[in-house]
Amino acid sequence: MVTLIRLADSATYQHHRQVVERLRFAGLPVREHGPHLLSVTVQVAGDAREPADVLANHPQVAEVTHLSVDHPQVASEAVPEHNSTVTVGTTVIGANGFVVIAGPCAVESRDQMLTTCHAVSDAGAHILRGGLYKPRTSPYGFQGMGQSGFSLADEARAETGLPLITEIVDVRDIDDLGDHVDMVQVGARNMQNFALLRELGRSRIPVLLKRGLAATIDEVLLAAEYLLDGGNDQVVLCERGIRTYERAYRFTLDITAVPVLQERTHLPVIVDPSHAAGATRWVEPLALAAAAVGADGILVETHCDPAAALCDGKQALRTEALPGLIERLAVATSAAGRTMLPQPERMSATQVAAAAG
Amino acid sequence: MVTLIRLADSATYQHHRQVVERLRFAGLPVREHGPHLLSVTVQVAGDAREPADVLANHPQVAEVTHLSVDHPQVASEAVPEHNSTVTVGTTVIGANGFVVIAGPCAVESRDQMLTTCHAVSDAGAHILRGGLYKPRTSPYGFQGMGQSGFSLADEARAETGLPLITEIVDVRDIDDLGDHVDMVQVGARNMQNFALLRELGRSRIPVLLKRGLAATIDEVLLAAEYLLDGGNDQVVLCERGIRTYERAYRFTLDITAVPVLQERTHLPVIVDPSHAAGATRWVEPLALAAAAVGADGILVETHCDPAAALCDGKQALRTEALPGLIERLAVATSAAGRTMLPQPERMSATQVAAAAG
Amino acid sequence: MVTLIRLADSATYQHHRQVVERLRFAGLPVREHGPHLLSVTVQVAGDAREPADVLANHPQVAEVTHLSVDHPQVASEAVPEHNSTVTVGTTVIGANGFVVIAGPCAVESRDQMLTTCHAVSDAGAHILRGGLYKPRTSPYGFQGMGQSGFSLADEARAETGLPLITEIVDVRDIDDLGDHVDMVQVGARNMQNFALLRELGRSRIPVLLKRGLAATIDEVLLAAEYLLDGGNDQVVLCERGIRTYERAYRFTLDITAVPVLQERTHLPVIVDPSHAAGATRWVEPLALAAAAVGADGILVETHCDPAAALCDGKQALRTEALPGLIERLAVATSAAGRTMLPQPERMSATQVAAAAG
Amino acid sequence: MVTLIRLADSATYQHHRQVVERLRFAGLPVREHGPHLLSVTVQVAGDAREPADVLANHPQVAEVTHLSVDHPQVASEAVPEHNSTVTVGTTVIGANGFVVIAGPCAVESRDQMLTTCHAVSDAGAHILRGGLYKPRTSPYGFQGMGQSGFSLADEARAETGLPLITEIVDVRDIDDLGDHVDMVQVGARNMQNFALLRELGRSRIPVLLKRGLAATIDEVLLAAEYLLDGGNDQVVLCERGIRTYERAYRFTLDITAVPVLQERTHLPVIVDPSHAAGATRWVEPLALAAAAVGADGILVETHCDPAAALCDGKQALRTEALPGLIERLAVATSAAGRTMLPQPERMSATQVAAAAG
Repeated sequence: MVTLIRLADSATYQHHRQVVERLRFAGLPVREHGPHLLSVTVQVAGDAREPADVLANHPQVAEVTHLSVDHPQVASEAVPEHNSTVTVGTTVIGANGFVVIAGPCAVESRDQMLTTCHAVSDAGAHILRGGLYKPRTSPYGFQGMGQSGFSLADEARAETGLPLITEIVDVRDIDDLGDHVDMVQVGARNMQNFALLRELGRSRIPVLLKRGLAATIDEVLLAAEYLLDGGNDQVVLCERGIRTYERAYRFTLDITAVPVLQERTHLPVIVDPSHAAGATRWVEPLALAAAAVGADGILVETHCDPAAALCDGKQALRTEALPGLIERLAVATSAAGRTMLPQPERMSATQVAAAAG
Repeated sequence: MVTLIRLADSATYQHHRQVVERLRFAGLPVREHGPHLLSVTVQVAGDAREPADVLANHPQVAEVTHLSVDHPQVASEAVPEHNSTVTVGTTVIGANGFVVIAGPCAVESRDQMLTTCHAVSDAGAHILRGGLYKPRTSPYGFQGMGQSGFSLADEARAETGLPLITEIVDVRDIDDLGDHVDMVQVGARNMQNFALLRELGRSRIPVLLKRGLAATIDEVLLAAEYLLDGGNDQVVLCERGIRTYERAYRFTLDITAVPVLQERTHLPVIVDPSHAAGATRWVEPLALAAAAVGADGILVETHCDPAAALCDGKQALRTEALPGLIERLAVATSAAGRTMLPQPERMSATQVAAAAG
Repeated sequence: MVTLIRLADSATYQHHRQVVERLRFAGLPVREHGPHLLSVTVQVAGDAREPADVLANHPQVAEVTHLSVDHPQVASEAVPEHNSTVTVGTTVIGANGFVVIAGPCAVESRDQMLTTCHAVSDAGAHILRGGLYKPRTSPYGFQGMGQSGFSLADEARAETGLPLITEIVDVRDIDDLGDHVDMVQVGARNMQNFALLRELGRSRIPVLLKRGLAATIDEVLLAAEYLLDGGNDQVVLCERGIRTYERAYRFTLDITAVPVLQERTHLPVIVDPSHAAGATRWVEPLALAAAAVGADGILVETHCDPAAALCDGKQALRTEALPGLIERLAVATSAAGRTMLPQPERMSATQVAAAAG
Repeated sequence: MVTLIRLADSATYQHHRQVVERLRFAGLPVREHGPHLLSVTVQVAGDAREPADVLANHPQVAEVTHLSVDHPQVASEAVPEHNSTVTVGTTVIGANGFVVIAGPCAVESRDQMLTTCHAVSDAGAHILRGGLYKPRTSPYGFQGMGQSGFSLADEARAETGLPLITEIVDVRDIDDLGDHVDMVQVGARNMQNFALLRELGRSRIPVLLKRGLAATIDEVLLAAEYLLDGGNDQVVLCERGIRTYERAYRFTLDITAVPVLQERTHLPVIVDPSHAAGATRWVEPLALAAAAVGADGILVETHCDPAAALCDGKQALRTEALPGLIERLAVATSAAGRTMLPQPERMSATQVAAAAG
């Protein structure tokens, strides 16, 4: 029972205060999400006056919408075109162009990181990926290079001019990571780590929020709502496969989640075909499916030498396979009425140094 | 622990008997699947002599393959090119061309059936669908026209010259249906109705076998094995969504199942986007994903007037939407290295009369 | 939007017709489920007059109940005490006593069947089980003795005086089975084999309906509704484990389904711990949980020599373990306010000969 | 490929070093888990010498065990009797006695907390529960009293003399919580928050680790391994329902997980029937099932006034219902060969002040 109130573009701060006061005076609990967006949540319909009645004829109220959901800020209706974009370095996710994020699962060594990132850049990808901290099911698995990999992240960004995304696993690492990467990823296992979401909401670093492995669509949206409610609206959602009874592959890629999420939220939605497949030979078909279904991009694990990878080598694409995949992705995405995003202008040294923070 | 023995193309019946006898003499339980295909199943490795050793140097033995699976006849290795085709009327499924099967969920009336089928045919589809018997979760739901719809099936096939597929729900209906349709569908809820599979295995009518709503890939293959083991090799598999915890749509389309099945079996694999989506607006994106992932075709519910449909109207595509979809499917399937199948030559009156039986 | 109308015990056939006519006259589509039970189903509320208004003050209308469900006959509200019983031979399921059904998964030989059944009978069980037709995932698995086991079924019943339950897998076997067993089981894979349910609804043989391995509670109830709608109210439901992502055991026993089903339907609810566990050592703890949660009984696979079993030997209880289990079940069921059912009077030769049919 | 080496009780630190050196000298990567427990993990069998051979005849090596699992420290084989206990205040979990942990979902007010805790204590429960920080799916839900509830926790423990457990949601709260509670709970959504597990492993506070809502048995054990690997062996596991397709209740209580976990790990295993049920009326049957299946205890939400609860009131047991439940639990647990644990000696003021830390 959330009512969303969008003010006219011409509304001033005065108008904003006026509308808030009028709602408060009517006993309605109003939340302010930004200069032009307010919401009212009432627990039981009929208990309270209708916001639409309270605001009737107010010239600066552009729209009053009832939501049947509990996530007013991520809901499509919260933004004018029902669509928002997220800027990562010089790349924009969520406009009409399909975005390719590629790179190794984990940063392992200078040689592996730079070789892979150059190949990824040459193939036409838009954003680099590379894990510094790895959440591992077993305490005895390789946990990532951590801080000792920061300089490799810096170098990869400086050499290619492409932005970099890495996973965050500890709420205490936000500031450090903000100095070395352009976007942080909240992994599936941390999608409901609310302490982490709260802190990321307070920061301004773009966030890639992966769907938890048994999270419903609603729970994904509510997790994103934590970020927006904190003030961070640079959020991209990522479908990466859910856990089902089937074990013939690693996770069940929920391809339907893409159009469903795109309908319910203005946030961009991308797909990670690698973790779902769990085997290199199925990554390409899943990536093509993601493009054809209308996703805003993919996040794909790519390695210069998958056989030697310390983490998830079984599902990594060889860098040599990336150019051909991107060509075929351009075809598939066109079936959905989109185009492949041209590679962005490379980041300048200043942009690299400035990082996301 | 199944060993598959493929004989040379030149092998005669004499050679066949020879090989069988040699294996039996060595104490190995041999099964004969056809003139050129045998298998040996042993429960515990090491208990028995190796078929390869027993048959060493036999000039008519083309190949001896160990399978780690229990379904020797549907396994890819069971046919020379790891690929088989199924002929439905004048349409061939499983060659390089993408096949579109379209029509109403249920045959409801002469007007609805013929209007829809003509539109489907004009749009460029290859096979008609239309349910005569409907398996319904509730005993009070519309259960299909049954035998009174046979003449409408005849008419639709005669008027369009396209073959027709319908669902079978009762083992006692096989003969009747064989006179009026070109292919029968075993629905998700009957995928492990082994009595039905046994009888269909004994018949020669092409079968579309839908994946059970919680069936593993292995179980789908074993259900198909029932059909092939009975002697019917005209079998197409169909992914139609599995049941998971997610309820934002009807079923979770397991898009990964397509490449996985194509790897494990020589049988064609198509996708039903309608039952997975459960809502018309998601049918097209899922259909495009199916084409891009490399499926051999789709089965899509289409209705001339979805709002008036007696069954599954919420997920039916309007017939008007079909031509545009088929155009975009052609683009998406090309990303996967396939082409849209040209519409087949129309069936002649004799072919229609002869039906599948 | 089902409204259930229960007539007073004193209502005559005249009254019954009167009520039906009054509803029909008001344009309401009435169904007659029995001399004292009617229902009205309307698709959209508000479209039609309220049955309660139509029947206001009718002296022979005992109760008018609105159901939010689509299965009026299995709903608790359909019977006076919200509880019905099912009589199998001389045993009554669903009264306060806990019932133990035990015996081998499959009838394999005279020796195995009789040895096991005598032991089961001596241990204090109430009903024998033994599969004559086995639905097997693979076409190459042991499919049961079929008709050649009928005489062993006869012998086991005659020697022990206990009733016998067996699984039915083919709609064409109903009459045959009715001559040799006291109850038939519809297995998980056939729970939505509606052709089979329809025929069993027309028969009068008691039916044990197992939950499908991905069936919702609602689907179980609707499957049972097929039986009752056909006229057969001798139906027992059986929770036997559902398919989930967990593979540490065979199926996830949905213990919560027991109180949920008992709340929603008047039919008795028992539990099969054997198929859920998939391993003998977990059968006893699950059986005890079933008793403590308040189930009406268990169905447990028991074998005189599990290591030699042709089917499911890994999960069979040794017959020697049964007396101890039954003792502990008596304690566990008492925690739920029930008692262990005393062993029934043995069936006489006439009863055995008469069988269920 | 983990080999576990247990030293004799009589082994000194010298012996320990000797064994470690001998293994290292043989090129085997040895881990030291404690004075009497070592492990060797090799990636590929056959690559390395056998630890058993290397240590052959060493008089202080009590046992060399091969594990097929990757969690040597939580594995049953890691402790002499395959069973360990956890001490929370004056209560011991994991010995033969069944333990009842009860109290409100969230601490809401002084009155609510003390009234409920006194009632829980009088009813015979062993440990209090009460959430100070609540992980909530929505950012707009009640998030707990936080630090302002610490004094209420202190008071409840002092007044009843019973230990208290609360949930931890932020890695930065460990020290604070350690001063006010006797055990911390890692909730289902944080089961794979590895940063949190690592820090808790470094602390010495007893931990109740709840199973993630889609975690496999193996993943639960590996999450616990993080704690033990950090040095904290005071760990209790808790089954609380998994997410499946069924929505008739909140989560599917995986009752089978109890005996399976008890077989694989020496850690105590308890059950939370409240979150699984999601409705008060199913809590008691599930609690009884947990006792009969052989669990070491239950964690049950209890509230003095469920209708007024700020959190999960729909599933809370009224405090008045607790004494009757505990009586019936005593019967059910006896079916599994256990007894209800007598209430512990109350904690003294010093113990309360000392807290867990």
